[in-house]
Amino acid sequence: MLNKKAVVLLSGGLDSAVTLYFARSKGFDCHCLAFDYGQRHHRELQAAQKISRLTDSPLKIIKIVLPWGGSALLDDKIKLPSSKHPSSRVIPSTYVPGRNIIFLSFALSFAEAIGARGIFIGAHAQDYSGYPDCRPEFYRAFKKVISTGTKAGVQHKGIEITTPLINKTKAEIIRLGNKLGVPFELTWSCYQGGKKPCGRCDSCYFRNKGFREAGIAQK
Amino acid sequence: MLNKKAVVLLSGGLDSAVTLYFARSKGFDCHCLAFDYGQRHHRELQAAQKISRLTDSPLKIIKIVLPWGGSALLDDKIKLPSSKHPSSRVIPSTYVPGRNIIFLSFALSFAEAIGARGIFIGAHAQDYSGYPDCRPEFYRAFKKVISTGTKAGVQHKGIEITTPLINKTKAEIIRLGNKLGVPFELTWSCYQGGKKPCGRCDSCYFRNKGFREAGIAQK
Repeated sequence: MLNKKAVVLLSGGLDSAVTLYFARSKGFDCHCLAFDYGQRHHRELQAAQKISRLTDSPLKIIKIVLPWGGSALLDDKIKLPSSKHPSSRVIPSTYVPGRNIIFLSFALSFAEAIGARGIFIGAHAQDYSGYPDCRPEFYRAFKKVISTGTKAGVQHKGIEITTPLINKTKAEIIRLGNKLGVPFELTWSCYQGGKKPCGRCDSCYFRNKGFREAGIAQK
Repeated sequence: MLNKKAVVLLSGGLDSAVTLYFARSKGFDCHCLAFDYGQRHHRELQAAQKISRLTDSPLKIIKIVLPWGGSALLDDKIKLPSSKHPSSRVIPSTYVPGRNIIFLSFALSFAEAIGARGIFIGAHAQDYSGYPDCRPEFYRAFKKVISTGTKAGVQHKGIEITTPLINKTKAEIIRLGNKLGVPFELTWSCYQGGKKPCGRCDSCYFRNKGFREAGIAQK
């Protein structure tokens, strides 16, 4: 691949950080994109900024307003899922309607504008039976949108979407991140915005379980 | 169809106004969506507001920033296409990377959040050999994104995208709008933001030609 620019969706969570390090390990010049979309807190975005600086991968933060709510991540009145019965079969209340589709659309626009040939996103298997927009079939469908609906696609240059974590468990992602030297301590997973992770939400549950299973100590 | 809510992408241009009137004629309770994305002027958005008020179809204007430019519509330094050699074979400088994909993603999020089953967008044939994201195959691909990547899709409720103008010429669109009682005088097509349409840009050229061919006088 001659053109080595890529757009990386960097939320500041563990998965996106591993994805950025993965893209860098493949020789890509990474341009990161994060979204300020009315999340309950900004801990993740602060994490994204730190990781962007550390890796010298410029970060753009896009502010978007979804004035229709519909998710526990955006609306204090909707209850966050607790880790008591984490289930991968039910779409959780933290699902934001169309979120990854919106994120990918911006990434695509950015990629076209800077002439990048790749988009990296850290969606993965452990999420995908819960979040519809984390499933492999969704990414296959989105590829078709790119090939039919963009200048790059029509001119047969294309923009490839890479989901390096899609079939990995959290433990496998953590092992990969460990190998790539990801500074896990800079990433933020907790749905709450406290000083320390709450340890109780779904996201904390899967993170902690992943580290235990990977046999890697959290700093 | 029991659920008659629909999201209509209403830019304020002629095509989107005809699309809104078409959706209303099919009995839909229309919720409009427009975008303030750094266009050179706001004449279209003002037109959208007028049409929304007139039809009692609530309008949400979403402000988005695409901090990478890449289009004559966003960047004063890129020349607007003139009507001297309007061509439908070349992607024009007014193409905004990923624009319709971004717009549709927001429409989809909105539709999911309010439980609408339809999205109406006024993309059409005369544009589609120029703008890749106005081609029927793009809309077919986007439908697959909805069925695989959203809660509504996964739960088999679906959200249908309707492109009522897709195969029509401008003259046919104007005839349809005339039949539906569209207040053409409130719509705005010109790429420039003057007091009156410039009469020289691509958009003015196609509008004027359309009215001539439809045999309908412009007010």
